[in-house]
Amino acid sequence: MAKKYVYLFKEGNANMRELLGGKGANLAEMTGLGMPVPQGFTVSTEACTRYYDDGRKIGSDIMDQIYEALATTEKLVGKKFGDLENPYLVSVRSGARASMPGMMDTILNLGLNDVAVKGLANLTQNERFAYDAYRRFIQMFSDVVMGIEKAKFEAQLDAVKALKNAKFDTDLNADDLKEVVKRFKQVYLENKGVEFPQDPKTQLIEAIEAVFRSWDNPRAIYYRRMNDIPSDWGTAVNVQSMVFGNMGNDSGTGVAFTRNPSTGEKKLYGEYLINAQGEDVVAGIRTPQPIATLHDSMPEVFDQFAKIAQSLENHYHDMQDMEFTIERGKLYMLQTRNGKRTAAAALKIAVDLVDEGMLTEEQAVLKVEPKQLDTLLHPNFDIAALKAAKAIAQGLAASPGAAAGKIYFTAAEAADAGRAGIPVILVREETTPEDIEGMDFSKGILTARGGMTSHAAVVARGMGRTAVVGCGELKIDEEKKTVVIDGKTYNEGDEISLDGSTGKVYAGMIKTVEAAVSGDFARLMTWADKARTLKVRTNADNPRDTIQAVKFGAEGIGLCRTEHMFFEADRIAAVREMILADTVEQRKKALAKILPMQQGDFEQMYKALEGRPMTIRYLDPPLHEFLPQKNMIDEIEAIAKELNTSSEKIVEKIDQLHEFNPMMGHRGCRLAVTFPEIAEMQTRAVMQAAINVKKECGYDIIPEIMIPLVGAVKELAFVKKIVVDTINEVFKEQNVTMEYHIGTMIEIPRAAVTADEIAKEAEFFSFGTNDLTQMTFGFSRDDAGKFLGAYYDNKIFESDPFAKLDQDGVGKLVKLAAKLGRETRPNIKLGICGEHGGDPSTIEFCHNVGLNYVSCSPFRVPIARLAAAHAAINSKKSK
Amino acid sequence: MAKKYVYLFKEGNANMRELLGGKGANLAEMTGLGMPVPQGFTVSTEACTRYYDDGRKIGSDIMDQIYEALATTEKLVGKKFGDLENPYLVSVRSGARASMPGMMDTILNLGLNDVAVKGLANLTQNERFAYDAYRRFIQMFSDVVMGIEKAKFEAQLDAVKALKNAKFDTDLNADDLKEVVKRFKQVYLENKGVEFPQDPKTQLIEAIEAVFRSWDNPRAIYYRRMNDIPSDWGTAVNVQSMVFGNMGNDSGTGVAFTRNPSTGEKKLYGEYLINAQGEDVVAGIRTPQPIATLHDSMPEVFDQFAKIAQSLENHYHDMQDMEFTIERGKLYMLQTRNGKRTAAAALKIAVDLVDEGMLTEEQAVLKVEPKQLDTLLHPNFDIAALKAAKAIAQGLAASPGAAAGKIYFTAAEAADAGRAGIPVILVREETTPEDIEGMDFSKGILTARGGMTSHAAVVARGMGRTAVVGCGELKIDEEKKTVVIDGKTYNEGDEISLDGSTGKVYAGMIKTVEAAVSGDFARLMTWADKARTLKVRTNADNPRDTIQAVKFGAEGIGLCRTEHMFFEADRIAAVREMILADTVEQRKKALAKILPMQQGDFEQMYKALEGRPMTIRYLDPPLHEFLPQKNMIDEIEAIAKELNTSSEKIVEKIDQLHEFNPMMGHRGCRLAVTFPEIAEMQTRAVMQAAINVKKECGYDIIPEIMIPLVGAVKELAFVKKIVVDTINEVFKEQNVTMEYHIGTMIEIPRAAVTADEIAKEAEFFSFGTNDLTQMTFGFSRDDAGKFLGAYYDNKIFESDPFAKLDQDGVGKLVKLAAKLGRETRPNIKLGICGEHGGDPSTIEFCHNVGLNYVSCSPFRVPIARLAAAHAAINSKKSK
Repeated sequence: MAKKYVYLFKEGNANMRELLGGKGANLAEMTGLGMPVPQGFTVSTEACTRYYDDGRKIGSDIMDQIYEALATTEKLVGKKFGDLENPYLVSVRSGARASMPGMMDTILNLGLNDVAVKGLANLTQNERFAYDAYRRFIQMFSDVVMGIEKAKFEAQLDAVKALKNAKFDTDLNADDLKEVVKRFKQVYLENKGVEFPQDPKTQLIEAIEAVFRSWDNPRAIYYRRMNDIPSDWGTAVNVQSMVFGNMGNDSGTGVAFTRNPSTGEKKLYGEYLINAQGEDVVAGIRTPQPIATLHDSMPEVFDQFAKIAQSLENHYHDMQDMEFTIERGKLYMLQTRNGKRTAAAALKIAVDLVDEGMLTEEQAVLKVEPKQLDTLLHPNFDIAALKAAKAIAQGLAASPGAAAGKIYFTAAEAADAGRAGIPVILVREETTPEDIEGMDFSKGILTARGGMTSHAAVVARGMGRTAVVGCGELKIDEEKKTVVIDGKTYNEGDEISLDGSTGKVYAGMIKTVEAAVSGDFARLMTWADKARTLKVRTNADNPRDTIQAVKFGAEGIGLCRTEHMFFEADRIAAVREMILADTVEQRKKALAKILPMQQGDFEQMYKALEGRPMTIRYLDPPLHEFLPQKNMIDEIEAIAKELNTSSEKIVEKIDQLHEFNPMMGHRGCRLAVTFPEIAEMQTRAVMQAAINVKKECGYDIIPEIMIPLVGAVKELAFVKKIVVDTINEVFKEQNVTMEYHIGTMIEIPRAAVTADEIAKEAEFFSFGTNDLTQMTFGFSRDDAGKFLGAYYDNKIFESDPFAKLDQDGVGKLVKLAAKLGRETRPNIKLGICGEHGGDPSTIEFCHNVGLNYVSCSPFRVPIARLAAAHAAINSKKSK
Repeated sequence: MAKKYVYLFKEGNANMRELLGGKGANLAEMTGLGMPVPQGFTVSTEACTRYYDDGRKIGSDIMDQIYEALATTEKLVGKKFGDLENPYLVSVRSGARASMPGMMDTILNLGLNDVAVKGLANLTQNERFAYDAYRRFIQMFSDVVMGIEKAKFEAQLDAVKALKNAKFDTDLNADDLKEVVKRFKQVYLENKGVEFPQDPKTQLIEAIEAVFRSWDNPRAIYYRRMNDIPSDWGTAVNVQSMVFGNMGNDSGTGVAFTRNPSTGEKKLYGEYLINAQGEDVVAGIRTPQPIATLHDSMPEVFDQFAKIAQSLENHYHDMQDMEFTIERGKLYMLQTRNGKRTAAAALKIAVDLVDEGMLTEEQAVLKVEPKQLDTLLHPNFDIAALKAAKAIAQGLAASPGAAAGKIYFTAAEAADAGRAGIPVILVREETTPEDIEGMDFSKGILTARGGMTSHAAVVARGMGRTAVVGCGELKIDEEKKTVVIDGKTYNEGDEISLDGSTGKVYAGMIKTVEAAVSGDFARLMTWADKARTLKVRTNADNPRDTIQAVKFGAEGIGLCRTEHMFFEADRIAAVREMILADTVEQRKKALAKILPMQQGDFEQMYKALEGRPMTIRYLDPPLHEFLPQKNMIDEIEAIAKELNTSSEKIVEKIDQLHEFNPMMGHRGCRLAVTFPEIAEMQTRAVMQAAINVKKECGYDIIPEIMIPLVGAVKELAFVKKIVVDTINEVFKEQNVTMEYHIGTMIEIPRAAVTADEIAKEAEFFSFGTNDLTQMTFGFSRDDAGKFLGAYYDNKIFESDPFAKLDQDGVGKLVKLAAKLGRETRPNIKLGICGEHGGDPSTIEFCHNVGLNYVSCSPFRVPIARLAAAHAAINSKKSK
C-alpha cells in the first residue's frame, strides 16, 4: 500500500501532532470529540519533508491523495469546488509540530473563480459579499502564492475608488467590485503572463506548495533557530471548509483563552467582532468586544462556546487558546491549542490545575517552560513607571533584567561608587577582563561595541548583571567622561536606565522591582526538586553571588574561578608583582602577599555556603590578562611606579607573554607546571580557609580542588603531587587532617578520549563545555562571529553551539569521557560547568548521560532545577 | 616462588634483551656460545622499574637475589669479595634495552678495600698496581655513587705529587699511592661524615642503586627523548668479574667492529692498547694501534679474536661492535652488540649481507634505520672542503643539508636572484608567510631569531631547504642590507655557507655534493617497496618539489597547499585585491585575475606528476596572512598605491580581519562558506587544468579535491555543492566529463568523532595531524614553546607531539575516525599528511590502523618508504 500523506480530520487525533502538526491534530481531536469543526483534511509534515527531498515538488502520489480527500470532504459538506449552486471554499493554513505563530503563510477563500463567485452570490443572496471575497482572494493568492506585490493591487483598488468617488472600500458596490476583480485579474496576467487560475484544484495545489515553501522563509528559519526547532520537522497543511463570520449581525469571529494568559486567573478571556472575518480582528480597524459581552448579544452561542471551552480545558488538562467563527448564528471551532502565557501565568495555572485535581504535581512541573522563568529571575522595571519612559537608544539585549543608576566610565570608579552604595551603570566602549570588579559592582553595563558573545555580554550573563551591548549610537569620550546619546551629553553621575531584555536605554532612573522565588513559583519549584535527580550547583566567585544563588536553590558551587579574585583592586598589584618576578624567590614573595587575601576570599565563600560543597578551580587564564595592553602607556607607567620597576621591563614582559593563540597557550594547569608555587599558594589558601571555617562554624567542609585544562594524566599527576604535598604540609603545621577531593576539568578533547587514564588520578570530572566546544569545533568564541552568521543563513548550524551543547559532536566526547571515567572509577563524580549548565536541552542531555550535577550562573539556578525535573520526568515517561 | 630479578650470565640469552638489557643479554649469549666471557650476573630492568615504584629503594628480596648471585659467581671464578689471597673485583655497568652509550654510569674495580688491596698486590705481585687501582676506585665510587666532586680528589693527588716532586702520576711509587689512598679516604670522610665503605657488598648495592639513579639523569632523559625510548623501560645492571688489561705487555684492551662502520667495508676494524684499561683508550693519552697490528704482537690472541668476531657476526647476522681485554695473554670478551654505523655503511652492510646469504631481503630492510637515511637525502659539504673551513657562527640546526650561496636580505630579491640562477642564502631577522617564495628560491635560510618550530624552521624542513635559525650572534640591518658576523660585515651578494645538520655558518662557498638514490641505496629501496603495503605520497606545492619527490619515489601528491601559490609575487596583488573587495562582484573580478595563474600552477603540477594522483587542498589560512602587519606602514602604502586604494582602507581591513586566536578563526572551509566564489575559482582552476593536461599529455587524471578544516558534515555538503555545481558548469562549457573525487581533511576533533556522518559526503579522508594535534591537546605549536620545556623536564611528555604522533590521544581519534568512516563507506581512502607523515613511528601506526597512504615532504619520501616497509615486515612477524 502507498504511504499515507493526507488525513481527513476524522481520521486523526491529538497524539498525531508530529505527523499532522499542532493545528491539524487538534482539529482532528475536536472532530473526534463531536465539536462543531468545519470539516477538511491535513497534508502531513512528511509530505513537506518529501517536497524538499524531491527538489521542491509535490509527488503525484501525494497529489492523488489530496484530490481524494478533497472529494470526500466535498461529499461530507455537500458542496463542490467551482459550483454555481453550492461552491466549496476552503482555507489553507500551515501547522507545524510546534506553534510558530505568524511565521508561515495562510490563504483564505480558496476555490473562488468566475463561476464559484456567482454560486457564492446565489448561496448568500449577497452579490457584493461574493465579489468582495473574490477580489480579496485574488490579491491574497497573488501575493502569498505567486509573489506579486500587494501594492500593484492596492493601486488598482484606489483607481476604482477614485473613479467611483468612494472614500472607503465599503463605499464600493457589487458592480464596482466586479470592476476591481477584472482589474486584479489583469494585474495577475501582466505579472505572470497567464490568466488567473480558474481551476480550484490548481489553486489548491499551488497554495499547498506555497505553505511548504514558507517553511523555509527567512523569518521561519530565524524563529526555528531561536526556539530550537529542527528544520527537518517540516510543516503540515490544513485544508478546511470556509465559514464566514461576515455574513451579517448574526455572524462574527473571535479568539479566547480559558484563563487569563497574563495573570493565570481562571476566567474566560478574549474578544470577538460581530460581522467580521478573522483578518479584521488582526487588522485592528474596529475595536473588538470582550468575550463576556457575547453573553448578552448571543446568549445561546456564548453558552455553547463556554461549555466547549471548559470541556477542551478538561480534555487537554491545560489552558486553551481557541479561535471560533459564528456563521449566521451557528458556532464553529477553528482552532484550539495550549495557550502561550507569561511566566507568572504559567506558574499560577500549573499550580491551580494541581489544586483543581486536573494535573499531578509532575504534570504541572512539565507545564512550565524552564527558559520562561528567566523573566522572573531578574529585577524588572515597574510596569507603570516603564510606560511613562521613552527610550533614548537601542542596543543588543545581552543580559536580561532592569537596571537604573548613575553613569561611571571606568571600572575603578564604578567599583568605588558601587562599594559606596551608589547604584552604578558602567558605560564603556567595550569591556576587558580587567573591568571584572567594576562590572561586579555595577547594576548594569552599557557598551558601544561588541555582540552577544562579547566579553561584556558573556561576563554580565554569568554575573546576572543587566547588560546592553553594541549600542552604536553612543559617542563615548572616556577621557572627558561624557557620553552623547540621542544628541544629549551625559556626564559621570548622570542617571540612566537599561532594559537588558529589550536592549533599550532610558534617561533617568526608572523604578525597578526585585525578583524572588515565592508563592506559586516556590510551590512549583518544590515539586520540581522532588522530581529531579540531577543536582544543581552554581558558578560563583564571590560571597554576594553565592548568597544569591543559595536563595535561588543552588546546592553548592560547581565552579569557583579563582582568577576573578585576582583582579580585585587590592590584589592586582601583588598579582602583577608575581608575574613580573624574575626568580622563584621573587615570585614566592609576591604570592605570599596574595595568600592571606585569597584565603580570606575562600573563608567568606565557605561561610556563604553554610556547609554546601564548593569546587575551586585553580588559576586558569594566561598571565598577560593581568597586565595592560602594550599601547596603554599611562597604565604601564602607573604600574611601573607602583611596583618600583621600569616601564621597559613591563613592556618586555608583555612582549614575552604575547601569544599567537592565547586560547591555546600558556594557561590552565600549564601555569602550575611551570610555576608550581602558584598552585602551592592556592592550595594553602583553600585548606587553611577550610580548616578555619570548619573550626569557627562547624560546617563539614570537604574541599574540592579542580585542576583546569588537563590534557594528559601525567600532567594532572604532576600538579596533584604539588597540591597533596602542600596539603600534607598544612596538616602537619596545624596538626589536623580533613577529607578533600582532587579532580579535573574535562575541557580538552584529549582529556575526553583518555578519560580512563585521567580518572586514575581524578576523583571528579567537571566538563568545561565552553572550552571543550571551542577545541572540538576548532573555533574560538571570540572569532567565530565572523562566519557563524553565514553558517546559520546556510543552515549548516541550526543553533549556537556555545548556548546549546552540540550533542552530536561535543556531546559524544562528554559521553565517551563519562563512560571511560566510570570504567576506571565507578563512583567518579561527574558535573558540567560553563554556560551550557543553564541550558534546558543541555541539562536534559546531562541527565540522560547520568551526570551528578550541573553548575550554572546564579540567575539560572531555578531554570536548571526545573529543567532537571523535566528531564527526570520525561525520561521516566519514555521508559 | 618469588619473582626473579637477578640472572647469572649462564642463565640468559640474546632474546632476553627487554629483561637483561642489550649488554646483559649479549654477555649471556656469548657465555652460552662458550666464548671467553668474565663471569657475572645481571640485575634486570624490572628491578630498576621496581626501584622507582618503591620510591627509589632496592627491595630486600632483590638484595637477597643479588647476594645469592654474587656467592654463586664467587664460587664459579674461585675468588672472594674482600679476600686477602684472592680478592674478587667486579665492574658495575648499566645496560638498557636500547643502547644509550655514555648516558649512564659505570664503576670499575669494585670490591677493593683495605684488605682486598693487599690481596690484589699479592695476587699480581705488584703493590703499585694494586694501590693505583684502589685510589682510582675510591675516586670513581665517590664521584659516581656519592656525588663528591672529582676536583677534591685531584687536589689531594696534586698535593702528594708536589710533595714527592712527581711530574706525572706514573712517577708515584706504591708508598706514594698509599698516601694518596689515605688522603682520598679522608676526603670521603669529610664529605660524607662516615668512613669509606669497607664492605664490598655495601659498595655493590650502592653502585647498583647509582646505576638505577643514572637512568633518570638529565642527559639520559634527553637522549631517550631524542631516541623515543620510554622512561618506563628502565636499565639493567651488569655485575661482571674484573679482568685487567694493564698487567704488563702481555695484557691489553681494545674495541673492534667486524666491518668498517663508516664505509661498510668487510674487514675487521678497530684499535687496541697494550698494557692498558678501557678507560685509557677513551682518555686518549696514548695513541691506540690499529687492530691489524695485533696480528704481529699477539698472533694467537689475534687469531682467536678474529675467529670469535666472525662467529659472532654469523650468529647475529649483523656487523658486531666488540670490546675485549687481554689479561696476561688470555683473551676476554667484555661486550658485543650490533654496531652503530653511518647511513652509507648501513646500506652497504645490509646489501652485502644479503649477497653473502646471511640475510633475506626483508631482514636486510630492517637493518637500516629509516631516520638514518636523512643524512643521505640532502646535499652535503664535500668532506675535504669542509675540513679546510672555519665556522664563523653557530645557530640551531633547523633543517638538514648543506647550502652555499650569496646573501640576500629580502624574500623578493632572493626570489629574483634564485630565478636568475644565482645560489641564494636568504638572511632574515625571522621569516613570515610572505617570505615563502623567497625561501623556495633559496638554497638555505639563516635567521637571527626563532627556535626549532619557528616559521623558518618548519617551512624549510617542509621544503627540504637547509636552514640555520635562532643564530643570535647575527647583527642584521635589513635596511642597509648588511649583516655583521663575528665582527665582520657582509653585504648583499657576499658568500656564506650553512650546515643545517650542525647549525654552523661558514664564510665563503664550500663545495657541496648532491644527494641521489643509487647503488646500495637504490637496491635496498627496491626491497623496501616490495615489502610495504602503505603508499607514500608527498606534500608539494610547486613543480620543482614535485619532480624532486618523484625522483625520491613519491607515488603522488597527498597534499598540495594552494595558498602557497597565492603568495607568489605575480599574484599576491590580485589576492589582496580579492581580500579588500567590498562586494561579491569586486571579489569575483579579482578572482578572475587569479584563475589563469592558479590553473597554470595546476597544469604544471599535473605534468610534473606524469599521471600520478594529486590531492589539492583548497585555500586554508586566515586571509590576514596575505596582508602586511598593521605597523608595516611602508608596505601598506606600497600596496595602497598598487591597488589604487587608500592606506586607511587597508588598515581598516587589517583591523577587521584581526583575530584573537587565528588558529581557531576564519579559515579553512569557513572561507568557502562565507566566500563561495573562492571555491568556485579554485574548482575551475583544478578542473580546467586537469582537462587540458589530460588532453595534451594523455595522462589519466582523476582530480582529488580536498576541503580543509571541516567539523560538521553539513559544512562539507555545503562546500561540496559549490564544487560540484562548478564542475558541472565546466563540463558543460567544455562538453567533456571526467572522474573526480571530493574528500576532506580530518583535522578538527569534531570531524573525527562524527566521521561516520562526514563519510556520507567525503570520498576520502586525509588526517591533518598537525592541526588535529593542536586541537586535541588544546595548545598551539606557536605558543607551546613557553611551557613544553617544563613538560619534558618533568617527564609529563617524553616526545614532541608535533614530531611523533601522540598515539594514546590523537591516535585514538585517528583510529576512531578510520573505523567510523569505514562503517559508512567501506572503501573510503584514508591518508595522513603533515609533518607526522614522515615520522617512522607514526608511519608504523598508520600501517597498523590500515591507512592507504602517508604523505610527507619530498626529502622524507625515502624515509617513509623504508619505514612503511619496516611496519609491514614487523607486523607480519608479530602475527
